[in-house]
Amino acid sequence: MYQLHAFATPNSIKPVITLEELGLDYELHAVNVRKGEQKSSQFIALNPNAKVPVLTVTDAGRPMSLTESAAILVYLAERHGALLPAAGQARARVFEQLFFHASAVSPAFGQAGYFDKLAPQVIPHAIQRFHGEALRTLAVLDGVLARSEFAAGDAYSIADIAHFGWLWRRAFAGVDLDGSPHVARWFDVMSQRPAVQRAIVRLDGLASAT
Amino acid sequence: MYQLHAFATPNSIKPVITLEELGLDYELHAVNVRKGEQKSSQFIALNPNAKVPVLTVTDAGRPMSLTESAAILVYLAERHGALLPAAGQARARVFEQLFFHASAVSPAFGQAGYFDKLAPQVIPHAIQRFHGEALRTLAVLDGVLARSEFAAGDAYSIADIAHFGWLWRRAFAGVDLDGSPHVARWFDVMSQRPAVQRAIVRLDGLASAT
Repeated sequence: MYQLHAFATPNSIKPVITLEELGLDYELHAVNVRKGEQKSSQFIALNPNAKVPVLTVTDAGRPMSLTESAAILVYLAERHGALLPAAGQARARVFEQLFFHASAVSPAFGQAGYFDKLAPQVIPHAIQRFHGEALRTLAVLDGVLARSEFAAGDAYSIADIAHFGWLWRRAFAGVDLDGSPHVARWFDVMSQRPAVQRAIVRLDGLASAT
Repeated sequence: MYQLHAFATPNSIKPVITLEELGLDYELHAVNVRKGEQKSSQFIALNPNAKVPVLTVTDAGRPMSLTESAAILVYLAERHGALLPAAGQARARVFEQLFFHASAVSPAFGQAGYFDKLAPQVIPHAIQRFHGEALRTLAVLDGVLARSEFAAGDAYSIADIAHFGWLWRRAFAGVDLDGSPHVARWFDVMSQRPAVQRAIVRLDGLASAT
């Protein structure tokens, strides 16, 4: 049984989709980031980086708490032998997209939303910088999805699940898919997967229950 | 024979260290990012995301160009069976640190340096935000290295190589190690590795030759 500390956030939905895709048993524990619960001493003991999600499980007889959403996806995919090709270029493309998401798409979308919606003052240069970077990374992803059905090739993988988090929450970053037909096509396919739909319902329930 | 497009940057040094640690043959090709060569149409054909490094190699008889420095590290480690534990918690910790670096340390250091040194205007809120985040992520890493010799446990791994890039270039982010004794201890150990020293010489040579 997996335990997952999470909330209705771009990064939290990734392991929930993965657990649903793999048909695994798990329990969700709400960490209300709107109330700052991720900064409590109790949660910091679980993740010193003060971020959701955190996966807790017994591995080889020892308890383990694992942070970083993409590292959780890799762990689940490797442990259960799915959603990640075993070798070669197909496998390398999955890691390429996981790190493109983590290092480029995710920071750009997050900072674009912060300077557009949360910052204490209007800073045009920062808004333009991060909104521009969000659109640039979206265009790169659109190019990737113009050449293949899924983010890392012809097979659905954890790379798609990683990208889905921020694309699902793109309104926060002030981004839409009007100029990104290939991302729009892919997002529709993703949204129709039963596991994705179940994950959204469970995370939305977490937010409304707290 | 590996081909690597690179420059003297935090991300470029990671695959060079890894290639040196593994004793592999490789050729470096300078992409002068100070002159914007990473945005040339020739380079965009190699990496639509317009970033160094890019690794090019023949894999299973087919040419492959791989982007994202951390994805290159994973590829090299798995192909050559080193610097990445095969399974279990030890392996999960490496991916946790690779993604902590890619999603938190690297964007914080990069944006801190940009707003401190390159932005067209002084924006105190952005400087404080990103310099503060650089210090926060450094403190998280210091806590990790207080509990273990290397970033992902007791064994040297590609997680250490990933963190080294931005720690090597920390002056750009306006960060020092005075308040981070465990990172400072680890950085000294890293700096004494012959492969790290060879990688620095080769990358510095790339910058001075162009």
